[in-house]
Amino acid sequence: MQRDFINFTDFTDFTNFINLKKIKVFSPATVANVACGFDVLGFALNNPGDEISIELNDLGKIVLADETPYGLPLAPEKNVTAVALQSMLDALKSKQGFNITFLSKIMPGSGVGSSAASSAAGVFGANELLGQPFTRKELVQFAMQGEKAASGSAHADNVAPALMGGFTLVRSYTPLDVIPIPSPQIFATVVHPQIEVRTSDSRKILRQEVPIKKAVEQWGNVAGLVAGLFTNDYDLIGRSLHDVIVEPVRAMLIPEFYAIKQAALDAGALGCSISGSGPSIFALSKTEKTAQKVAQAMQDGFNKVGIENHVFVSPINKEGVRIAE
Amino acid sequence: MQRDFINFTDFTDFTNFINLKKIKVFSPATVANVACGFDVLGFALNNPGDEISIELNDLGKIVLADETPYGLPLAPEKNVTAVALQSMLDALKSKQGFNITFLSKIMPGSGVGSSAASSAAGVFGANELLGQPFTRKELVQFAMQGEKAASGSAHADNVAPALMGGFTLVRSYTPLDVIPIPSPQIFATVVHPQIEVRTSDSRKILRQEVPIKKAVEQWGNVAGLVAGLFTNDYDLIGRSLHDVIVEPVRAMLIPEFYAIKQAALDAGALGCSISGSGPSIFALSKTEKTAQKVAQAMQDGFNKVGIENHVFVSPINKEGVRIAE
Repeated sequence: MQRDFINFTDFTDFTNFINLKKIKVFSPATVANVACGFDVLGFALNNPGDEISIELNDLGKIVLADETPYGLPLAPEKNVTAVALQSMLDALKSKQGFNITFLSKIMPGSGVGSSAASSAAGVFGANELLGQPFTRKELVQFAMQGEKAASGSAHADNVAPALMGGFTLVRSYTPLDVIPIPSPQIFATVVHPQIEVRTSDSRKILRQEVPIKKAVEQWGNVAGLVAGLFTNDYDLIGRSLHDVIVEPVRAMLIPEFYAIKQAALDAGALGCSISGSGPSIFALSKTEKTAQKVAQAMQDGFNKVGIENHVFVSPINKEGVRIAE
Repeated sequence: MQRDFINFTDFTDFTNFINLKKIKVFSPATVANVACGFDVLGFALNNPGDEISIELNDLGKIVLADETPYGLPLAPEKNVTAVALQSMLDALKSKQGFNITFLSKIMPGSGVGSSAASSAAGVFGANELLGQPFTRKELVQFAMQGEKAASGSAHADNVAPALMGGFTLVRSYTPLDVIPIPSPQIFATVVHPQIEVRTSDSRKILRQEVPIKKAVEQWGNVAGLVAGLFTNDYDLIGRSLHDVIVEPVRAMLIPEFYAIKQAALDAGALGCSISGSGPSIFALSKTEKTAQKVAQAMQDGFNKVGIENHVFVSPINKEGVRIAE
């Protein structure tokens, strides 16, 4: 009996065990920084996202297959999903193997947490197949290792919302302290101009020292944004969505940034800034109707200068990564 | 009839008008910065505080009298209460005169908002006597002018909680945007060593540029503290009460700072840092019993090295400046 329980392949006809053996996972795009909250705040979107299938195998190793058009690296030590998953298996001291197939993928380098979605998908899927040894919050530390493989820095401001949904605050890294922040109904518009900005490059151009006056302004806005999210105060959220430290530097990497931002605000957005390290630009709006109007305005701005772009409108995804149908 | 209404002195027998003619005001001490929230956060205490009496006069000017032991400047242009009140009268285009008597006073230079209490007392008292033309929040801009007279900088992180009570966030100065932050029951311990640190001096030693890594750590903590106050999460409040930017510089102005802080934490405080620009040190505790234990520990720390000190234990004052009995 005991051996039968361990050998899942004997139970392929038993629905519960089929569910536990192979699942499809949807992992959402995320917007990090959220204007004022550089390196600490992020939120999840309903779309776009990554889709993977993940399955237990008996090979004692992670086997990867890519059905996306992006030519993802399939050597486990170079693939963010595998790196994140391996760090989780190491923590469990597990030799369990997995087959992972990348079915569809957020375009890499878009600035909406493409590597974070891949990292979150792998650890979430494996955690489900292994009977949930970890909470979603605990999975953040493993998904961060995927981020480290992708950009050299184990940041959590994308993987935390990808795993936990909603708005998240990474209060501290040492020790890791991730706080969910509630939010009212609010809609994000994200426009992705088809230019590539590498996370590592966009970090290099940041100044290592910032004026204390600007830092005070920034943490006033971070506190205001958190208070606005807690109190459903859309005006306060809007007043707080200002980045006086990172946006002024990174904006130069995104052609038309200030024109697009102004167009979004003119169309009724509460606020608008760079998504993560760019080049995507996000805006937040109170209603879906406004978010759609903002989408049109942002898209028009890029179209006018002939920059190909994709635009997404989504409510805040409160659930995070999930088992897909 | 109309003239009679204007001439209040004809109505001294009519209780409502007596109340409107002369009042006693209690204005609370405040703790600015609250560890991570340099220049943006503050909270009010029940004690100590300033007491003034304020009365309408027919002289068309502000007349000051001092019953405190501190030898306060009584020339209206040098007295913070008068400066703040005058800025309010200017906004009202009012020539109304006031007699103000300083009855008791927080010790100047203590770092618990002595000048803010005086500024708040004057504008609050006059606003009451004039039939409340302004809200408490609107009074902040006038009280700030008293702060400017005191320290050269029109900061609001003490006057906002003095006027509005509770925890307050000064999200922005241009335009002024003050946000009340709710808080669970929480007790403050403040120890004031009898050494003087001038606000202007303690600002001069701050670095004008700060490492972005430290700034990120700081705004992670600011966001965490606000989230902890909203969710009554004492643990999160405690984890967030860290100042990695200002405290390390200003601590050198306060003998025994790190020993006192450690003693407070060992006694059970959630967190401990410098109150405003010092030299007072504050700690926050979950219960009054712990706050008293913390008070003893902090006081012992100063006593051990022969530094005279006063200690106060108080819940957060939710009301702010008020008409006293």
